[in-house]
Amino acid sequence: MALLVQKFGGTSVGTTERIEAVADKVCRFRALGHDIVVVVSAMSGETNRLIALADAIMEQPVPREMDVLISTGEQVTIALLSMALQKRGCDARSYTGSQVRILTDRSHTKARIRQIDEQRMREDLSAGRVVVVAGFQGVDDLGNITTLGRGGSDTTAVALAAALKADECQIYTDVDGVYTTDPRVVDSARRLDRITFEEMIEMASLGSKVLQIRAVEFAGKYNVPLRVLSSFQEGDGTLITLEDNTVMEQPVVSGIAFNRDEAKLTISGVPDTPGSALRILKPISSANIEVDMIVQNVGADNRTDFTFTVHRNDFRRAQEVLEQVGRDLGAREVNGDTKIAKVSIVGVGMRSHAGVATQMFEALSNEGINIQMISTSEIKISVVINEKYLELAVRALHSAFDLHRPGGEA
Amino acid sequence: MALLVQKFGGTSVGTTERIEAVADKVCRFRALGHDIVVVVSAMSGETNRLIALADAIMEQPVPREMDVLISTGEQVTIALLSMALQKRGCDARSYTGSQVRILTDRSHTKARIRQIDEQRMREDLSAGRVVVVAGFQGVDDLGNITTLGRGGSDTTAVALAAALKADECQIYTDVDGVYTTDPRVVDSARRLDRITFEEMIEMASLGSKVLQIRAVEFAGKYNVPLRVLSSFQEGDGTLITLEDNTVMEQPVVSGIAFNRDEAKLTISGVPDTPGSALRILKPISSANIEVDMIVQNVGADNRTDFTFTVHRNDFRRAQEVLEQVGRDLGAREVNGDTKIAKVSIVGVGMRSHAGVATQMFEALSNEGINIQMISTSEIKISVVINEKYLELAVRALHSAFDLHRPGGEA
Repeated sequence: MALLVQKFGGTSVGTTERIEAVADKVCRFRALGHDIVVVVSAMSGETNRLIALADAIMEQPVPREMDVLISTGEQVTIALLSMALQKRGCDARSYTGSQVRILTDRSHTKARIRQIDEQRMREDLSAGRVVVVAGFQGVDDLGNITTLGRGGSDTTAVALAAALKADECQIYTDVDGVYTTDPRVVDSARRLDRITFEEMIEMASLGSKVLQIRAVEFAGKYNVPLRVLSSFQEGDGTLITLEDNTVMEQPVVSGIAFNRDEAKLTISGVPDTPGSALRILKPISSANIEVDMIVQNVGADNRTDFTFTVHRNDFRRAQEVLEQVGRDLGAREVNGDTKIAKVSIVGVGMRSHAGVATQMFEALSNEGINIQMISTSEIKISVVINEKYLELAVRALHSAFDLHRPGGEA
Repeated sequence: MALLVQKFGGTSVGTTERIEAVADKVCRFRALGHDIVVVVSAMSGETNRLIALADAIMEQPVPREMDVLISTGEQVTIALLSMALQKRGCDARSYTGSQVRILTDRSHTKARIRQIDEQRMREDLSAGRVVVVAGFQGVDDLGNITTLGRGGSDTTAVALAAALKADECQIYTDVDGVYTTDPRVVDSARRLDRITFEEMIEMASLGSKVLQIRAVEFAGKYNVPLRVLSSFQEGDGTLITLEDNTVMEQPVVSGIAFNRDEAKLTISGVPDTPGSALRILKPISSANIEVDMIVQNVGADNRTDFTFTVHRNDFRRAQEVLEQVGRDLGAREVNGDTKIAKVSIVGVGMRSHAGVATQMFEALSNEGINIQMISTSEIKISVVINEKYLELAVRALHSAFDLHRPGGEA
């Protein structure tokens, strides 16, 4: 008998039929004697419908009123799910973010949770009720409705689990767990039984969009065991926890992440003086363009080459800014390339294993794939390659690190 | 410069274009220097859409959750209207019933307002803001969302006007005021500039569905001047107030109301003993059938005839109950008639004028219309006639009491 927080996203509650299926699932857990808090998103499509109404009225809708508007989406779902549970004889009570008092700061449309008053939920749980909470929303200290930004329902679930010291926070989604890599690219990709918070954050930030990165960070910070499962299939999903020291043989690499959303810009022949990196990147960030990887080479003649990546949508603007910067700094030339892909290997095991980078570069070299940029962190190595080799690179790395076998190459 | 509460119903805010038109109207009042609190309903169709979702889940949706669900309808409108006002440079703030603290009892789906905390509204008004409040909803003492039942937005507007001691409560609707009778029946029907609360209640209860009767009663109780106007046309509408003693020549009759929703039942030859009325009506009310007019004639042979009207939808059931009663009481016979109509003349002027009934009966008699039942109150006389004479009767009475002329026949 455990206290579980279960979160169901928009697709899982997209129709009244699906809401009934969620109710069936929750009732089965309840029948096992577990205490359950359910967090739900708006029915899929509903948030976009509401945003379209606001857009019809003004181009830049007032943030405070935007929150009043879109928070209705989740409010509809909590009422319907609570009814579906009660129809099944499973006593339930719905709460908006404001009612259960998810106190946030005053940043409308992107609020951060400050505090949760779990008293009311505890009373309901003691009375044998399932508590159904609207995800994605809260209330500020003045009583205004706030929202946490897209994907905020995951964060709500984790925050409730932390406040209630739940045994597990289960995120139900349309995939059945976290994979060693994208199964559409590698047939032998394998669902991981466990992964650490750190690895999950690296995987998520690299494009494996199973969970919101913010929710994973939150779970890590408060040590809330997080499990990703499928709403539609049975299965244990993937458990995300702190590093598990009881597992003797930690695999070196847990997964391969990749994305094709980036583009590369190079400014060559820049005078190698203090502050030149700043003079290059400041105009880019002033234009509200986010930079991902940054590499600077030591060059000859007191000149240097500077390369960085941005989101492909920002490429044209970044190129214009950089050409101006190039003229100002007297750079030799500015080049850009949108046909790139980033591939990363992720694993906490890297910390204690030397030679992982070598092994990665060797696998790519064996396939004749040229590496354009390299960037490393404690538990991740990322490379930028020509986009056309992406699938080949992912398959080669998946095989080189034995990810198709449980336990990996350890 | 006045404090006005303005209420716009579902049709008036049915699309984003109409919400923008409401914003234009509110801004014009604001530009005149008035302080304004706006109450809005859900966009037309929205409440029915939400009810259909609940119906898809269960036949008798849980009332508490029903309130959580349908209160989202008005919440969407307040956000959109507040945005539309701010787009026009008219500072505004939206509030749900819970935020502005419209405290109600705990009767979900048909709650009654207990108290309103007007402090927050006053602060906004002082700061020059338009306050936009969700109609139809409130919050109980435990923080649960409640709704006031259909048409409750009118009641919200009147209650806010009473709490704020507003100069006027303006109800914008799709008609431009209260008429002497239905203009579709009588061409010369005239919009009334003024009408008393009592008259309005009689008119409303008799089928002139301009305003919710509950809102009119509330306005009368707290003496809130109430004005009915059109959302779509210019005009002063109809002002509903306490009896105005400054008007020297009060018209005897203010309007003609009618309805065709009733059916008549007669039980004849009932022993004329104490308690027979009770023995007839108790089984009817036990069957949850509401009775409107009741007439009992003194008969011969210590026997009496007893006639009453019910809603046509209840006619069949009432007839079955009454036939059983007839057998139990040894009545001579039970008859029913669905082809009836009720016509009423309404006016506070009747109080001080004798002979109004005679004048009414004469007008009907001149047209050869037979009166089947009569019922009177201090400011109303109702008759039941054969349905086919309804239009003829209304026109004859409208003309007999000179209602086409301002000031009537006084």
